[in-house]
Amino acid sequence: MAPTTEGEQKHPRRAVALAAHDASGRVSPICISRRDTGDDDVAIKILYCGICHSDLHTIKNEWRTAIYPVVPGHEIAGVVTEVGKNVKKFNVGDRVGVGCMANTCRSCESCEEGLENYCSKITFTYNSHDKDGTVTYGGYSDMVVVNQHFVIRFPENMPLDKGAPLLCAGITVYTPMKYHGLNEPGKHIGVIGLGGLGHVAVKFAKAFGMRVTVISTATEKREEAMEKLGADAFVVSSDASQMKAVKGTMHGIINTASASMSMYPYLALLKPQGKMILLGLPEKPLQISAFSLVAGGKTMAGSCMGSIRDTQEMMDFAAEHGLTADIELIGADDVNDAMERLAKGEVRYRFVIDVGNTLKAA
Amino acid sequence: MAPTTEGEQKHPRRAVALAAHDASGRVSPICISRRDTGDDDVAIKILYCGICHSDLHTIKNEWRTAIYPVVPGHEIAGVVTEVGKNVKKFNVGDRVGVGCMANTCRSCESCEEGLENYCSKITFTYNSHDKDGTVTYGGYSDMVVVNQHFVIRFPENMPLDKGAPLLCAGITVYTPMKYHGLNEPGKHIGVIGLGGLGHVAVKFAKAFGMRVTVISTATEKREEAMEKLGADAFVVSSDASQMKAVKGTMHGIINTASASMSMYPYLALLKPQGKMILLGLPEKPLQISAFSLVAGGKTMAGSCMGSIRDTQEMMDFAAEHGLTADIELIGADDVNDAMERLAKGEVRYRFVIDVGNTLKAA
Repeated sequence: MAPTTEGEQKHPRRAVALAAHDASGRVSPICISRRDTGDDDVAIKILYCGICHSDLHTIKNEWRTAIYPVVPGHEIAGVVTEVGKNVKKFNVGDRVGVGCMANTCRSCESCEEGLENYCSKITFTYNSHDKDGTVTYGGYSDMVVVNQHFVIRFPENMPLDKGAPLLCAGITVYTPMKYHGLNEPGKHIGVIGLGGLGHVAVKFAKAFGMRVTVISTATEKREEAMEKLGADAFVVSSDASQMKAVKGTMHGIINTASASMSMYPYLALLKPQGKMILLGLPEKPLQISAFSLVAGGKTMAGSCMGSIRDTQEMMDFAAEHGLTADIELIGADDVNDAMERLAKGEVRYRFVIDVGNTLKAA
Repeated sequence: MAPTTEGEQKHPRRAVALAAHDASGRVSPICISRRDTGDDDVAIKILYCGICHSDLHTIKNEWRTAIYPVVPGHEIAGVVTEVGKNVKKFNVGDRVGVGCMANTCRSCESCEEGLENYCSKITFTYNSHDKDGTVTYGGYSDMVVVNQHFVIRFPENMPLDKGAPLLCAGITVYTPMKYHGLNEPGKHIGVIGLGGLGHVAVKFAKAFGMRVTVISTATEKREEAMEKLGADAFVVSSDASQMKAVKGTMHGIINTASASMSMYPYLALLKPQGKMILLGLPEKPLQISAFSLVAGGKTMAGSCMGSIRDTQEMMDFAAEHGLTADIELIGADDVNDAMERLAKGEVRYRFVIDVGNTLKAA
């Protein structure tokens, strides 16, 4: 293992992990090396890790970026077991989390503005090259060592299991709502797609005091959207009369769909100067008539993850409002089954692996 | 002529105008009726009128909206000749202008927010139905009567001829620069296309204190862009090495192109969270990869005209900075030739008709 650049070497670290070895996408237990706890590092015993759809994309090499073996997982929650000598923010025993990023350059314009999620030299939490050249391994594992800057504190009343998914799904929806003014009481927001991202988007929008309409292809989600998640209305996108009834009424739309869809009927739901936020990554290009943006002065904006500052802010806000993800807790042995169900959209709304109690060496 | 809804009827008004009668797009002189000066109206003797590309689209019925005879023109500058009894803002003799709008509902959410350019019941200055059911006729004419709310004051040092195009071209670029934060000193802005809109976008950006790079297909415009208009740099869009040199450097891009282009190489010029503003209306849908927006948290926003409040603010700002359009002044008899040259892009950068001195009845 290459030495870290961040201080004196201590003892080597071996960790147990679930890794995918090829594009079959199946994971199995292996042993991995974790870097030693450098002066600015925090070592974390992982107790829970959420399963994000991008884990599935990555292990199946659908984005052509897989560096096998891939240990996925960037919704990591656990407890601090060791801190480097420069670490002042965290102590052993603290409840903490790690999201999508494990490192960035810390000196570019984006980093200096505190928007390190847009650093071009970003090191992702897994399947990425760290500054020392090693490949990063994610949270389907029993421990991780991360620079203190990239560690998020769990507020006291935030559960580790239901809070873990907020580190990716939560911040991904919170960030554009904050930066595009879609967090103001009384505004009307649409949420396209009711999965891992969509269900927390509904919860954040309600916590902001907004009116929320879920737009979905799945009629059967109506009751749950309205009664369980608290949406104010539910529109089936294939029903032209339902779509017409909400035309021109929305200040913004959080679009979590990953399919290549025509944007026209959805842009029509926006008020003048309304904003459509894209979070998904459909493979095919989107087709957009310029007129549907120009005539109403409308915006279509992408958004990707969120900064560390915003992630902490989001966690604190969520804790204050008792907001967590709806999860299905699974054991480490269930991950392959869970991935199959995830591919079919059969989860409400996030699988979380009970790493602490179930992950064992092969 | 139908009575106006805005007060007692006075004497009927006959005006001389240049009208297109069919999709040949050729104009010829006719007499038209103008409504009487209602209590809230301002009557204006038109001295100059700019020729906007949308005039050409309309008279050739390229947008399938022409109501013949079409009297085009929404960059109108002249002098007040009569005011209604409720008019306090304007006096006879004042130098004023009229832009793209002649009326709106004044009561919808957009109107109440002072963004009447997004009113769904907007009456355009020409080729549109006014509240009384009459068709509006534009500024290729010797007089016009407009509700005072839609009249813009020309500041003392703003020339009527070179100022007229600001009422459409100027406000169309000024508005998105204002609303998307692309008016801050030191920021870097790209301008795609150096025509009627593009050349004033360069001037406004320089007046805001920004760094401006013109992105054009036409190498021969380099000298003029930099020496005459004051751009800081000029990039030929077909030259991959020139494009690469400015990759990731721009806070925003004002895209005035009307052609269906691939957005990918242009979105790549933006910094993270950069904004591409669409002003043109290509006929074919735009192809956009979601990744090129999501990865950098980038925005693509449409914008259409601007509000009356912003138009006055823009005119005052322009006057303060000695900013006008670069025009070619033509006589009323030259309009058909000018339209042919406009279709070929052979104008630097706006034709303005010297209505006051050259428009005569047939």
